[in-house]
Amino acid sequence: MDIVKTISELRQHVTAARSQGKTIGFVPTMGALHIGHASLIKAACEKCDYVVVSIFVNPTQFGPSEDLEKYQRDLDADVKICTDCRADIIFAPTVAEMYPGELITWVDVEKITESLCGESRPGHFRGVTTVCAKLFNIVCPDYAFFGQKDAQQVTVIKRMVADLNMPLEIVTCPTVRDNDGLATSSRNKYLTEIQRKDALLISKSLLKCLQLVEKGNCDAALLKNEICKTMTISPDIKVQYVAIVDPETLQEIDSITDKALVAIAVNIGDTRLIDNILIDLNNL
Amino acid sequence: MDIVKTISELRQHVTAARSQGKTIGFVPTMGALHIGHASLIKAACEKCDYVVVSIFVNPTQFGPSEDLEKYQRDLDADVKICTDCRADIIFAPTVAEMYPGELITWVDVEKITESLCGESRPGHFRGVTTVCAKLFNIVCPDYAFFGQKDAQQVTVIKRMVADLNMPLEIVTCPTVRDNDGLATSSRNKYLTEIQRKDALLISKSLLKCLQLVEKGNCDAALLKNEICKTMTISPDIKVQYVAIVDPETLQEIDSITDKALVAIAVNIGDTRLIDNILIDLNNL
Repeated sequence: MDIVKTISELRQHVTAARSQGKTIGFVPTMGALHIGHASLIKAACEKCDYVVVSIFVNPTQFGPSEDLEKYQRDLDADVKICTDCRADIIFAPTVAEMYPGELITWVDVEKITESLCGESRPGHFRGVTTVCAKLFNIVCPDYAFFGQKDAQQVTVIKRMVADLNMPLEIVTCPTVRDNDGLATSSRNKYLTEIQRKDALLISKSLLKCLQLVEKGNCDAALLKNEICKTMTISPDIKVQYVAIVDPETLQEIDSITDKALVAIAVNIGDTRLIDNILIDLNNL
Repeated sequence: MDIVKTISELRQHVTAARSQGKTIGFVPTMGALHIGHASLIKAACEKCDYVVVSIFVNPTQFGPSEDLEKYQRDLDADVKICTDCRADIIFAPTVAEMYPGELITWVDVEKITESLCGESRPGHFRGVTTVCAKLFNIVCPDYAFFGQKDAQQVTVIKRMVADLNMPLEIVTCPTVRDNDGLATSSRNKYLTEIQRKDALLISKSLLKCLQLVEKGNCDAALLKNEICKTMTISPDIKVQYVAIVDPETLQEIDSITDKALVAIAVNIGDTRLIDNILIDLNNL
């Protein structure tokens, strides 16, 4: 497996792979890789001949009060996971390589970035879409792989790709959970043992929601109420939002009649956690 | 020469050309082609093996009070020019093909879009950068060709390409002028005979500016004053701006010490005309 730090080296490698007729898969990450990322890399290797993993903690998607500085960086551990998953190359640029001067060009997806996580993280999605546009232009992949865990991110990126006719396909991979149900996240490491126990209420509340829907309860207000009731068993869970929305427009819906995204964001101590499930009434 | 109207057909042709090892050149236009466009197409054919000309009157770059509806559309005449210049393919999509649904993703270049033409045409450059991003993603060219006539547009597009790491190179071609000095523009057709005579004062004033600089006059205020004086010989020329700016940042400069862009926008009757010259003190 190759590890490169510059755009020109990365392009050389990808161009060489493409000239051999290989399809290019791309998994953009901020490092701190875990089994969730591993599942993305494996899915990429399954579908594509040559797989690029980028590791770049992108400053433009962090707010001024967010955890940019304390975000974990352990390239050796990340390299091991990429190697184990049989990625072909890691692209690990510096901030100066990605942002050599003042950045004055932004890719902005309106409307669907304003609700859910966008509400409490102004500018976050503009940072995500802009860095993804840059990375897509650098890697030129045929497929890029994202986790359903970041549901809004996937919706926003897919919309950007469609609106701007970007020549690649976004592949969404299912959320990976630990055995106890907690969705894997780089931020889980911040949790104390007690906080981690509390965090299990998140996936538990989503499971309960699913069971209620399976029994025919489709009223969004009722379902959100039950989710909140389950989570606030612990006083240490501060609910940021519980939303039931159309998976494409991310607009709140009153009742589940077809497809719905049930999405949650909470704070436990200083740690912000998100989780979600997709519900399809025609496919329960 | 092929003429296609859909994105998928265009991509098929370009992919076929690329698979033969051909380099791809791209000339984006809004049709109403004239000898200025012809020079771009010829430059593209000179440099590239396969040349795409797009003809698309992009609604998102017109303001509500601008000339979208009256903008000339004559595909047959445009096809003849493209054929004569030996373009390989015309991409002439419908508005529905380019904007099939609501567009909520915009590519926005800040700062350098606020001055000059940006001041009187809010949203114009956002429309230009977004449609160019879309077209670049559709055509995937190695080189795209723009005219120096639209100086701010070239600067903005170059900055977008650099900031977003778009995998292509922008080639700027010199402004083409009629024998009398008037910069070629699709909008020249709107001018009456008398207005056209007035319009000659634009290039005349730029030439005078250049002569003054050659004689050692580098003070921007003095030069702008002389340009205005020359143009307002005709009371029918309404000056929108006369600016002397840094060619990259488009910030006004007090004095020409190195490179400078001298840019003009005027209204003659209902017709808005722009023109400019690049001055390089080290290369007079």
